[in-house]
Amino acid sequence: MAKTNPGRFFEDYRLDDVIPHAVPRTVSGGERALYHALYPARHALYSSDEFARSSGLSAAPIDDLAAFHLVFGKTVPDISINAVANLGYAEGRWLVPVYPGDTLRSTSQVIGLKQNSNGKSGVVYVRTKGVNQRDEVVLDYVRWVMVRKSNLDAPAPETVIPELKKTLDVSDLAIPAGLDFSNYDFALAGEPHSWADYNVGEQIDHVDGVTIEEAEHMLATRLWQNTAKVHFDATVRPDGARLIYGGHVISLARALSFNGLANAQIIAGLNGGAHANPCFAGQTVKAWSEVLDKAETTAPGVGAIRLRLVATSDGSVGDLRGEDGKYLPGVLLDLDYWALMPL
Amino acid sequence: MAKTNPGRFFEDYRLDDVIPHAVPRTVSGGERALYHALYPARHALYSSDEFARSSGLSAAPIDDLAAFHLVFGKTVPDISINAVANLGYAEGRWLVPVYPGDTLRSTSQVIGLKQNSNGKSGVVYVRTKGVNQRDEVVLDYVRWVMVRKSNLDAPAPETVIPELKKTLDVSDLAIPAGLDFSNYDFALAGEPHSWADYNVGEQIDHVDGVTIEEAEHMLATRLWQNTAKVHFDATVRPDGARLIYGGHVISLARALSFNGLANAQIIAGLNGGAHANPCFAGQTVKAWSEVLDKAETTAPGVGAIRLRLVATSDGSVGDLRGEDGKYLPGVLLDLDYWALMPL
Amino acid sequence: MAKTNPGRFFEDYRLDDVIPHAVPRTVSGGERALYHALYPARHALYSSDEFARSSGLSAAPIDDLAAFHLVFGKTVPDISINAVANLGYAEGRWLVPVYPGDTLRSTSQVIGLKQNSNGKSGVVYVRTKGVNQRDEVVLDYVRWVMVRKSNLDAPAPETVIPELKKTLDVSDLAIPAGLDFSNYDFALAGEPHSWADYNVGEQIDHVDGVTIEEAEHMLATRLWQNTAKVHFDATVRPDGARLIYGGHVISLARALSFNGLANAQIIAGLNGGAHANPCFAGQTVKAWSEVLDKAETTAPGVGAIRLRLVATSDGSVGDLRGEDGKYLPGVLLDLDYWALMPL
Repeated sequence: MAKTNPGRFFEDYRLDDVIPHAVPRTVSGGERALYHALYPARHALYSSDEFARSSGLSAAPIDDLAAFHLVFGKTVPDISINAVANLGYAEGRWLVPVYPGDTLRSTSQVIGLKQNSNGKSGVVYVRTKGVNQRDEVVLDYVRWVMVRKSNLDAPAPETVIPELKKTLDVSDLAIPAGLDFSNYDFALAGEPHSWADYNVGEQIDHVDGVTIEEAEHMLATRLWQNTAKVHFDATVRPDGARLIYGGHVISLARALSFNGLANAQIIAGLNGGAHANPCFAGQTVKAWSEVLDKAETTAPGVGAIRLRLVATSDGSVGDLRGEDGKYLPGVLLDLDYWALMPL
Repeated sequence: MAKTNPGRFFEDYRLDDVIPHAVPRTVSGGERALYHALYPARHALYSSDEFARSSGLSAAPIDDLAAFHLVFGKTVPDISINAVANLGYAEGRWLVPVYPGDTLRSTSQVIGLKQNSNGKSGVVYVRTKGVNQRDEVVLDYVRWVMVRKSNLDAPAPETVIPELKKTLDVSDLAIPAGLDFSNYDFALAGEPHSWADYNVGEQIDHVDGVTIEEAEHMLATRLWQNTAKVHFDATVRPDGARLIYGGHVISLARALSFNGLANAQIIAGLNGGAHANPCFAGQTVKAWSEVLDKAETTAPGVGAIRLRLVATSDGSVGDLRGEDGKYLPGVLLDLDYWALMPL
Repeated sequence: MAKTNPGRFFEDYRLDDVIPHAVPRTVSGGERALYHALYPARHALYSSDEFARSSGLSAAPIDDLAAFHLVFGKTVPDISINAVANLGYAEGRWLVPVYPGDTLRSTSQVIGLKQNSNGKSGVVYVRTKGVNQRDEVVLDYVRWVMVRKSNLDAPAPETVIPELKKTLDVSDLAIPAGLDFSNYDFALAGEPHSWADYNVGEQIDHVDGVTIEEAEHMLATRLWQNTAKVHFDATVRPDGARLIYGGHVISLARALSFNGLANAQIIAGLNGGAHANPCFAGQTVKAWSEVLDKAETTAPGVGAIRLRLVATSDGSVGDLRGEDGKYLPGVLLDLDYWALMPL
């Protein structure tokens, strides 16, 4: 028996199976500092313990996307090591903030299976949960990937496609216990615009850009213990390029969105997302956002805003798809999420 | 109204205005570790809690220059985003050490204004203060920058040029409370040379060099939440180069100066500094120092030494300016500072 | 007198001399996070405080190799700054785990000297100890290097070659106090293979690879305060290449060995090691292991396994030396160590 992990193939997944993922991880101020070194992150709630306390939290949490990457990274050896494509995300919810000292682990449950008509691969739907040392679910999300079959003779499973919400309702979102933006300091946060200042349909060009280096995306991807070969080993692809982890682009775009959305402090829900085109070192990533929806919440001073976040490699703003309905080549990411901001 | 921050133009500054800067930042051992990864930093007081305790401090502070960069980084969106040039520094004083767990914020006061004769730009002088969570000023310094006008028809303000000390007197320096070098361990610190061993006029070639990579200066500059586009976005300049943040060169040169000035432990004052030539990735940075002055202090076993720190891209030592009085092309930095060292 | 450290030459070493090394260093979660960003490290005991507690430790220690690099880095200015070659390691023992908050310092004792027949250099053997703030020796090891003479007329010292064990016996190994693998969670650790599943002579291809960037190895080497010019300054070598610190390759190979040896949690002993060929940025490092020996220990549920860890630049597996007995050009590292794993 080979000692290395060959990963699961399509025929290895069974509906309702729960897969516990290795390796648990304790985070500290080190992860927080690295997040700030790797991305131009400036949201005050994640930068300053004092600001977080004035908002009703006990300290500055680890960035919501860092928590997501840590939970996601653990799933790679079990879910996507033999994946052909990462097809989508849905129903992502951040339930409990992650603080320095917390230890995270992940599990995934298979909630859907559909063999492709070519018989060579299939789509696997999983709901992944990130859990802390107190057994609290800190976030969960659904993802579906296309996975190769190893044994082409294996019978196709019964097709089950889960019903997934196109968009989370604001009532689906978890608001961190104690969160209170009643005394929010807009000057310290960096921008004067409150929830009321944003209009549905409004587009925001985030202006800034970052030209990506190989060392940066590899440091980040390793930090999340994501081991997919294609991010690290330049001999894997025929063109010698290292494919950048899609989550790196998400974090980069979100951090760039500070300039225009500095007060969209907390990511509370992920409605969906597509890695529209592959990203490689040398590209200059920019971002723009569109306000898709707004809603009130029950927390004092806290509004919810639904945003489309688009990362580009060509600096375009507002363009997403061509006449054929496909993403334009300069679009890297199309993400749909809910954020919490001061009223 | 655009949601992104356009920054202030020359006509937007008013004498005596106090500008509170976003975003507060809590530091931890993560920032300390990253400082050691980004620069060849070895000064024992900042490397070892035990060494710091034996010198009368409660623990190893965050490097003085890391504190400077954190305070400086916050000022960029308000002071230098539309700056044409960073013209100078004066009267920089480190007043209180910064420790893991501290949260820093910054404010700047406009202390001088002078429109240029071309009417298209002007010089803005600000005194910037870094403040911790106990409202203690941890450092302050004066900087002046040339800023573009947006509205060329805006009237010129009254010219006010602040009186600035060419050099801080040793009595202007703040010595950390409790600092005591009476039982200083020279072997653990790395060099046998005490304050008494240095002579005014002495030059020291620090010998070591570092060839800079793009990923390194971007990680550092982001860590300080300095968002100036020109450091990150290779599409900004016509030549496709990313200009390296001047503070990166300061930290690199200071860290290199360990080899010959290992006991110049604490930076207490910044008399002035010039970023003589731009720095780009691929250059090999070396450094040399010159002893400009020496003075006694009231703290036990603690002497003050005034140093010129020069960073070069060509390995030259001792050469600063050409016959025309301008900095030679191989000079990157000319910094004048006070350090504290054991007698 | 020049203020910079010229380092010791062969004639400067005296048998039995004890050399205290600068600079002490306090580690934190920052060093742990950076270790995970720099290497694809996933051993659960070093990743999760909870996993470490369930194994009888108080928290997740800093990676054994990070402790080694920190201790080793301090020796460079005194031992290897004028070294022509790093010849070997022996009798390396990890005695006490290193935790965030600990402060490490190093000392080396000269235990052997042998001038080369050409009279221009000699071999220096030292036993280096890493010591924490409680004066506990956390690790010790023997290393020997070839060092140049500065004064060729200096008389040759009496030749003393220390007797060194070719291989540590399992009884020589220190097992961390309290370590207990009786309730080891193989699913959380990432692989099902216990000590009993490995056979002497078995080879494991670790499959994964990492293409090295300049920024990464420099960040790592600086983090350990290793100042050898050749790693940082591209103007030192005629070919303009920066030689990668051998310890970087050790950590990279060890981290890659997770895939197949995820449960070889703790490095307890270093029997020997050779940096077979120099490593440069752009190379893709892969690794394979061979089981050399197995032994039982007195700790509950804990077995010892002796492993050969080989890093390659050409992806070869199982090949080590050519017909001439020399290492093949694709071999970077040949390391012989003892690890502790669950029975």
